[in-house]
Amino acid sequence: MGQALKEEVSHGDSPIAIADMSGAATNMRVKLPAICLVLQIILIILFGVLVQYNHDTDAKLWHKGNQSDYENDFYYRYPSFQDVHVMIFVGFGFLMTFLQRYGFSSVGFNFLIAAFSLQWATLMQGFFHGFHGGKIHIGVESMINADFCTGAVLISFGAVLGKTSPVQLLVMAMFEVTLFSINEYILLSLLGARDAGGSMTIHTFGAYFGLVVTRVLYRPNLDKSQKRNSSVYHSDLFAMIGTLFLWMFWPSFNSAVTAHGDDQHRTAMNTYYSLASCTLATFGMSALTAHDGKLDMVHIQNAALAGGVAIGTAGEMMLTPFGSMIVGFLAGIISVLGFKYLSPFLESKLKIQDTCGVHNLHGMPGILGAIVGAVTAAAATTEIYGGGMKDVFPDVASQARDSFKQGGLQAISLVVTLGMALGGGLIVGFILKLPIYGSPSDTICYEDSIYWEVPGEEETHDDQLTTVRAEEVEKLNS
Amino acid sequence: MGQALKEEVSHGDSPIAIADMSGAATNMRVKLPAICLVLQIILIILFGVLVQYNHDTDAKLWHKGNQSDYENDFYYRYPSFQDVHVMIFVGFGFLMTFLQRYGFSSVGFNFLIAAFSLQWATLMQGFFHGFHGGKIHIGVESMINADFCTGAVLISFGAVLGKTSPVQLLVMAMFEVTLFSINEYILLSLLGARDAGGSMTIHTFGAYFGLVVTRVLYRPNLDKSQKRNSSVYHSDLFAMIGTLFLWMFWPSFNSAVTAHGDDQHRTAMNTYYSLASCTLATFGMSALTAHDGKLDMVHIQNAALAGGVAIGTAGEMMLTPFGSMIVGFLAGIISVLGFKYLSPFLESKLKIQDTCGVHNLHGMPGILGAIVGAVTAAAATTEIYGGGMKDVFPDVASQARDSFKQGGLQAISLVVTLGMALGGGLIVGFILKLPIYGSPSDTICYEDSIYWEVPGEEETHDDQLTTVRAEEVEKLNS
Amino acid sequence: MGQALKEEVSHGDSPIAIADMSGAATNMRVKLPAICLVLQIILIILFGVLVQYNHDTDAKLWHKGNQSDYENDFYYRYPSFQDVHVMIFVGFGFLMTFLQRYGFSSVGFNFLIAAFSLQWATLMQGFFHGFHGGKIHIGVESMINADFCTGAVLISFGAVLGKTSPVQLLVMAMFEVTLFSINEYILLSLLGARDAGGSMTIHTFGAYFGLVVTRVLYRPNLDKSQKRNSSVYHSDLFAMIGTLFLWMFWPSFNSAVTAHGDDQHRTAMNTYYSLASCTLATFGMSALTAHDGKLDMVHIQNAALAGGVAIGTAGEMMLTPFGSMIVGFLAGIISVLGFKYLSPFLESKLKIQDTCGVHNLHGMPGILGAIVGAVTAAAATTEIYGGGMKDVFPDVASQARDSFKQGGLQAISLVVTLGMALGGGLIVGFILKLPIYGSPSDTICYEDSIYWEVPGEEETHDDQLTTVRAEEVEKLNS
Repeated sequence: MGQALKEEVSHGDSPIAIADMSGAATNMRVKLPAICLVLQIILIILFGVLVQYNHDTDAKLWHKGNQSDYENDFYYRYPSFQDVHVMIFVGFGFLMTFLQRYGFSSVGFNFLIAAFSLQWATLMQGFFHGFHGGKIHIGVESMINADFCTGAVLISFGAVLGKTSPVQLLVMAMFEVTLFSINEYILLSLLGARDAGGSMTIHTFGAYFGLVVTRVLYRPNLDKSQKRNSSVYHSDLFAMIGTLFLWMFWPSFNSAVTAHGDDQHRTAMNTYYSLASCTLATFGMSALTAHDGKLDMVHIQNAALAGGVAIGTAGEMMLTPFGSMIVGFLAGIISVLGFKYLSPFLESKLKIQDTCGVHNLHGMPGILGAIVGAVTAAAATTEIYGGGMKDVFPDVASQARDSFKQGGLQAISLVVTLGMALGGGLIVGFILKLPIYGSPSDTICYEDSIYWEVPGEEETHDDQLTTVRAEEVEKLNS
Repeated sequence: MGQALKEEVSHGDSPIAIADMSGAATNMRVKLPAICLVLQIILIILFGVLVQYNHDTDAKLWHKGNQSDYENDFYYRYPSFQDVHVMIFVGFGFLMTFLQRYGFSSVGFNFLIAAFSLQWATLMQGFFHGFHGGKIHIGVESMINADFCTGAVLISFGAVLGKTSPVQLLVMAMFEVTLFSINEYILLSLLGARDAGGSMTIHTFGAYFGLVVTRVLYRPNLDKSQKRNSSVYHSDLFAMIGTLFLWMFWPSFNSAVTAHGDDQHRTAMNTYYSLASCTLATFGMSALTAHDGKLDMVHIQNAALAGGVAIGTAGEMMLTPFGSMIVGFLAGIISVLGFKYLSPFLESKLKIQDTCGVHNLHGMPGILGAIVGAVTAAAATTEIYGGGMKDVFPDVASQARDSFKQGGLQAISLVVTLGMALGGGLIVGFILKLPIYGSPSDTICYEDSIYWEVPGEEETHDDQLTTVRAEEVEKLNS
Repeated sequence: MGQALKEEVSHGDSPIAIADMSGAATNMRVKLPAICLVLQIILIILFGVLVQYNHDTDAKLWHKGNQSDYENDFYYRYPSFQDVHVMIFVGFGFLMTFLQRYGFSSVGFNFLIAAFSLQWATLMQGFFHGFHGGKIHIGVESMINADFCTGAVLISFGAVLGKTSPVQLLVMAMFEVTLFSINEYILLSLLGARDAGGSMTIHTFGAYFGLVVTRVLYRPNLDKSQKRNSSVYHSDLFAMIGTLFLWMFWPSFNSAVTAHGDDQHRTAMNTYYSLASCTLATFGMSALTAHDGKLDMVHIQNAALAGGVAIGTAGEMMLTPFGSMIVGFLAGIISVLGFKYLSPFLESKLKIQDTCGVHNLHGMPGILGAIVGAVTAAAATTEIYGGGMKDVFPDVASQARDSFKQGGLQAISLVVTLGMALGGGLIVGFILKLPIYGSPSDTICYEDSIYWEVPGEEETHDDQLTTVRAEEVEKLNS
């Protein structure tokens, strides 16, 4: 154990914690390789059996047609995909590095479970959405959808951050991706709901699923790790890298899978103004709710993003920049108030230990987004949408339903999502409670050195002077 | 005040500074929420009254035409927009994190004033450029222009960094965006000048406006904060994140609003070579001007970007890569010399305390860029531009003026810009001098903990040993 | 020398090291400005004589045709270019910041040699590939290729990281770019090999070239710098910024210069799945090969990227996602095993001091990629590729050769590349061994303060208390 042990000692944990650390409980020597390599081999086999290039990625199929190479969907989706990809890996990954001793795990486990989830999501979503003649056809749009599904898993990760082993996280991801795909299928295919930016399917689902899981995994003695459940100066700056990449690329996220043309364009713009408005609300509320008027980094890092969440469903609709800014404004206010007043309540009364405050960033703004989407859909008229109705509300355009019914189905979709998230989280929570995953004990949560080789501190001036002085003290003592 | 007070004490400020900090002067409890929320509500109302989707973002209008969805301007501007967006929020934000105790404010206030400015700029620029039937029509191009205008505000922010309150910055942004829009209107619409990458409208204007503001706000006792007006090892690495994202995406910045086709392509390429050339000049000059040949991070972080500034006006012209490289080379040399010799002079003689050295990165290279643009415009011939003349110099192509006159108007534009910046900065500087904004006193500039909850230091090995040793000393004393 | 001297002393180097540092040996006052400015002036002159806008960037040429502005290649290559650009400057730059005292040099020298290499590569590659009537025609595709060539130089930089002066690195870049261009010309033009993502031309070449150079520059007493040849907590997080941007944008890298349409689309997707698969393999192997099951940041930072390297040649082929995932899986396993077992062997037995482990990330995975490419090429049939054969294997489509021969030529290309890299590295290594470049002595490798002004440490609480206590000790002593 060597260096890691010393490291741990140097952070002042009790001997019990250290003993725990060296114990077999959290040792990943067998469990992690087993699950990583076995899951990957299963994925490879399933891809071999089930997955095929789609029309736009297959050399033969593409060249059969008369279309120009410039019409390939790659050019109209791939820039959005790359922005989404950055959000998933750098955005979510660095957003969670705010903890002082959990940066390796935040970025690293985010990396691991995202790399797994996107593969597994390709299969599960393909099974529900892209099954043609027994094969799943894939291309850039399925890649975006796989990244989206991964986003939901990473939201749930935020709720349990610091308290779970990587094996536990992979198991959670496996189940959550499956449930996500079922819920998405019910919403988009069965109910014909619209949710391009995933206020419901991604944010509401991911947040409430994660909150129930963390409730089931409640740790009564987590206060023993409390001193590490906070940031240091530079960890807060690393987290801002995550925040900003999420904020900047959110317009691409919400518009990545909307219809081409005005739809993508409008969605990106609505999201841009919602986020800007949300940011001012966040700064204002952060100073207002602090007793000394000082800004809280937690709010800036998180609540400023709520405007992107809350515009997820309605972003493609004719909400107008005016409407988008109102939505962002409300989202920012709700989110800061949630961090300030609701999170402590949830923790003390409902025993929900929500490390990253996903309820404030994804949960409540997600519900707000679903409601805004339902209302905006119910208010849709041909007067406003013209020929564009068929892209935004195809069922209304085809007169299969009227706007009001579309709005109603949007509202039902929210209820379904909450039900799936709560029920699914409950079951998966109990599965994750089994004492077989090597999760840390209450005294050593939020600590990288359990699962990572952590380097020692830089040798500094201080150390040397300290040594000199220590020797002097020694001499005086003798 | 609790932790923040201890924090401050731990940084060794005098009791006076601490008293100051706890005083009402810098308390943002009322001022910041008031300005943020009121401004945002005003913006929302104005957007509601004035702003509409343009042809490419409106569902009805877009679907009236026969055009293909693939022709939507989204696909030809949005990737550039996203690059510009990254420059504004991550580029400018992190570039200013070089200060050891001002990272939260650098990234955070950058975030705040950018989120405000882009909304306000949409209105002001729309009022001057995009007013149709009493409504402002917006789409991706207006989003890019709003981000551009925001860039100018962030340049000015660099000049006053560490010495201003967030309320003061928002007030500055409000006025500067307005003046920027007027100046831009005079240059582009009245004078018919070309300035796609904003050497004049963005860089020269932003720099000289900020320099005059910081001159008016001159702080005679700023040396009392001198020890915090420097970097530490990791803050310099954070700043390099900003530098590199600015450097890499500058080709997108300069080409974001040029005409489609060869123009965007050429502009990006000219900028690419200008920046590469500038980088070698910067490294060379940095080592040359140091007495021991050691490179200075300030030069690398800033002067290497001057090649992007200086090619802002002429980038879209037929400057050739050869010409671009000469421009970049000169910009790098001027900029390093400015940091080395001119900035100390400006501070000691002209009382211009330019925190980030915006005069060296944006001011002088901006003027160089304007001059290069004027000369290149004057030298334009149909021989060289062929049918492309109408995209680069529409007034020359339509024979409304000849190349030489175009060059002259470019030069006049520089003069107008300098006048607007100096005059505007003077007035706004005096407005910002009012003692109502909660700006920090001279002894506590460059310090996050005035406006932010700053986390404590990580508990380290040293602390513990220190405690042990302190106890030993105690024992020896008794 | 002042601050830098104190800084150095504070890091505990022996007096000899300090003397060395202040000596003329590593002083860059003359050498670095000379080489930077002279090289840049030569580049400018050569660009003036040789380089012209190509059809898509020239105002006159572009407007002669009848094509739409939307058909300009800018729109189909530039987003990929920007992703590649981020990989070169932020990806490679930050990946190497893992060293505790070498962050300025990692990011800074990466910046310098990349800015030089891309200009020089434009000329060398243009000479071999884009020479028309005595002129080199350039546009976005040549910019991507120049960045690619730069990538090879940066790989070699990884092998010699911490042990070379910036002057030495520029000289290495000058020769390596030249040899790269010759090798690329032999492979792509003479042998007609396919290598869109550069498994051979970039990764294998760059790695083995760098390994031979570092072998020739073998430092027997490098153990005296050993304490700095390791990471600290935050330096590992900075390195993850590099890792993730490389990982996320690798699909753009491999697809940046493939044929338009299905080819780019397929290449990006194959790379995406290869990398995801590689990541799970890397985490599994990292835990498996650690005696206590703890993950090693070195593996996550590097081996997780091997899947992008290994899919470089075959990515554009009809490898299927299934095949891509197998390739990524193998690459991850090989790479972790290399870091764990082969690198120590190479260092102790073959005297190859490979700072970043480029043999594990680029060398072996590059060879694997070349082999996979050869096999996949040999297996190509019209049955599978249909009309797309002409884009992937033009010589097979035109029946100039059959698939089996194409595979054979791919294999020969690997051999040629290895020969060029080993031979070239040997010669250039001896050139770089000349004692004229100001490289550091064995005792002060991996140290920024030789070539950079390094800021002091932040003044902290500890320092003050320490001082107080030191005074107390003093008093007690007297």
